[in-house]
Amino acid sequence: MKVAILGFGTVGVGVYEMLENCAGLEPGPVLVRPGKEDKPFKVSSMEAIVNDPEVYAVAEVMGGIEPANSYVAMALEAGKHVVTSNKALVAAHGIELAELARRKGVSFLFSAACGGGVPFLHNLAIAAQSDKILSLGGILNGTTNFMLDAMQAEGKDYGDVLKQAQALGYAEADPTADVSGLDALRKIMLACAVAYDKLPVDGFSREGIESITAADVADFQARGLTCRLITSGGPAGASVYAYVEPVLFPANAPECSVVKNFNMAKYNGENAGAIVLLGQGAGRYPTASAVVRDLCGLGSLEMFRPACVKVRANNAGCVHPYYVRVDADKAGRFSFRECRADGDSVRGVVEPIAVPQMHKLANDIRQEGGSIFFAAVEA
Amino acid sequence: MKVAILGFGTVGVGVYEMLENCAGLEPGPVLVRPGKEDKPFKVSSMEAIVNDPEVYAVAEVMGGIEPANSYVAMALEAGKHVVTSNKALVAAHGIELAELARRKGVSFLFSAACGGGVPFLHNLAIAAQSDKILSLGGILNGTTNFMLDAMQAEGKDYGDVLKQAQALGYAEADPTADVSGLDALRKIMLACAVAYDKLPVDGFSREGIESITAADVADFQARGLTCRLITSGGPAGASVYAYVEPVLFPANAPECSVVKNFNMAKYNGENAGAIVLLGQGAGRYPTASAVVRDLCGLGSLEMFRPACVKVRANNAGCVHPYYVRVDADKAGRFSFRECRADGDSVRGVVEPIAVPQMHKLANDIRQEGGSIFFAAVEA
Repeated sequence: MKVAILGFGTVGVGVYEMLENCAGLEPGPVLVRPGKEDKPFKVSSMEAIVNDPEVYAVAEVMGGIEPANSYVAMALEAGKHVVTSNKALVAAHGIELAELARRKGVSFLFSAACGGGVPFLHNLAIAAQSDKILSLGGILNGTTNFMLDAMQAEGKDYGDVLKQAQALGYAEADPTADVSGLDALRKIMLACAVAYDKLPVDGFSREGIESITAADVADFQARGLTCRLITSGGPAGASVYAYVEPVLFPANAPECSVVKNFNMAKYNGENAGAIVLLGQGAGRYPTASAVVRDLCGLGSLEMFRPACVKVRANNAGCVHPYYVRVDADKAGRFSFRECRADGDSVRGVVEPIAVPQMHKLANDIRQEGGSIFFAAVEA
Repeated sequence: MKVAILGFGTVGVGVYEMLENCAGLEPGPVLVRPGKEDKPFKVSSMEAIVNDPEVYAVAEVMGGIEPANSYVAMALEAGKHVVTSNKALVAAHGIELAELARRKGVSFLFSAACGGGVPFLHNLAIAAQSDKILSLGGILNGTTNFMLDAMQAEGKDYGDVLKQAQALGYAEADPTADVSGLDALRKIMLACAVAYDKLPVDGFSREGIESITAADVADFQARGLTCRLITSGGPAGASVYAYVEPVLFPANAPECSVVKNFNMAKYNGENAGAIVLLGQGAGRYPTASAVVRDLCGLGSLEMFRPACVKVRANNAGCVHPYYVRVDADKAGRFSFRECRADGDSVRGVVEPIAVPQMHKLANDIRQEGGSIFFAAVEA
């Protein structure tokens, strides 16, 4: 059965190659930009794909919202299954596309959009059918994990490890989506929708790693702690909580052994208990493998179910102690348990505080031109 | 749709309770021993189950080879799907039962037989459809992991942690299957069959944890190493390798953060890369959750495929350095890289040696009445 591929970049080439070696499936036409049809299998018209009766499914790996959204809708309208790795698309239009797929009796799956090669959404969708998911999340961005790990292992500063990540292809030329936590946030949006039938679309708290310095890392290490960028989601009354922030873990925490650009996705099932999945969260073949896994399992699973609705996230009930490094003249805004002066800054651990309140305090300080780094402290 | 349950022990009760809260499924008759029918839903006749047209699937959680094997065959013959947690049954008769299921057009699934709540076989079966599995295995026995972790964390001796594990319900009154590595071996047999269409039925190397002492653990710890009981499988020419033995890991290895009775199942896909799954490998609800997950996914997956055949395992190509503690008068049989005398024993690390050869040397020494402990050293 032929699978058309939209986009022939890093992931698209991987999907093409894997389909050439996959029993029961084969690569079909590949959509490229006009003028790039340098091989007979490359086409530049979406019509050629949706009108091809041999095309059974479409793998969308072009990225971006448009024209990906229109093309996916065209494919679904034409009765083709769709698998995508495009987290921005699914976060923005996933509910509508899943509804269209349901009406047309085809699948709309997106395992590769969250966790790359780690089969997180697939397992979450299955677990949600028979278990109550008490919480979910983890390390869902490999770029920032690589950077935090390199800062800790090599004592380097933020700018240096960012350049290193870019040189290795782990970070894009514009790394904002990764380092700001937006990429991880989109992933937790999808995971909440799969687990709870609730897609959070606003009300988030999101803090990336852009404020971390080598001095911060040196101080965690002296305290025996390791920093990871963590996404957290779970039920919150009629809504869900969903936020991204740096977290400090003690040395024996499993998160500390997640190194380089690896991902660690978790869910806690009322019956299954804590289930953790580790693997490569990005890269040509890991991501392509998640796309092809979905293509092999078409028809057996729904990721966004009919009940799925958009909600405003509610993080008010999420409370942690935080490690804070802040300008000395702003330190009075926090209830430090213990702290010390460090140049013009104060650093230490503050009493437990709700996630939105902590994020708001930091945003206020930054808007005033102040400097702050914070990370939740895992008990 | 009604699911009959064979056996109403730890797992059976968990499956019953989960089915009461599972959309689309409900508990049907439960098979118990004659005289134990103290509730209307309990029956003591397998005929009552296979002849009940409302029973759509059967969950076999009674354990043991017979009568489980006959009952599962009866259910499949009657056109009922079967899900089982019974690794001994699947290792002994799985190929024949899967063939019968195929002929009858029903599913025969056994996720719970390997990894408890960790969805290892399910993910492995999916990955094997589209990726080449380069190796698989991990920590697949929670009882021995609990014991090794407790010995290391508390400095206790083997007999004390075994009693503790029994008191907590982690080890059975007769712990032989766990501590000898037989339970872990059965799991790797199933994993090899799922990943490679090859069920190894002999030619194994198997070493449990029965020889480990507090003095051994103290010595690893002084070297910064942690001991885990590891199962390993992978392709070996026309066959597979499959063995169980203690392995020593450096402190930063992910295996070291697997504590208590947790499991860590791994596979390495040519495209997906290393995928690791962590969770509770046993217990009422984790194991029941794996049974119910399979029940929710009936019809979409084959674990033992038509090509699956029995093979003799071939471990000759698996070579490691080993940590060895052996009677001083037997030490000359090993090429120690470094060693020291410790009372009447010698301990140290020997040059790389093939797995079957190491296991044979140890067996020979024990047959002569000698004492030895060995563990592979992870590079």
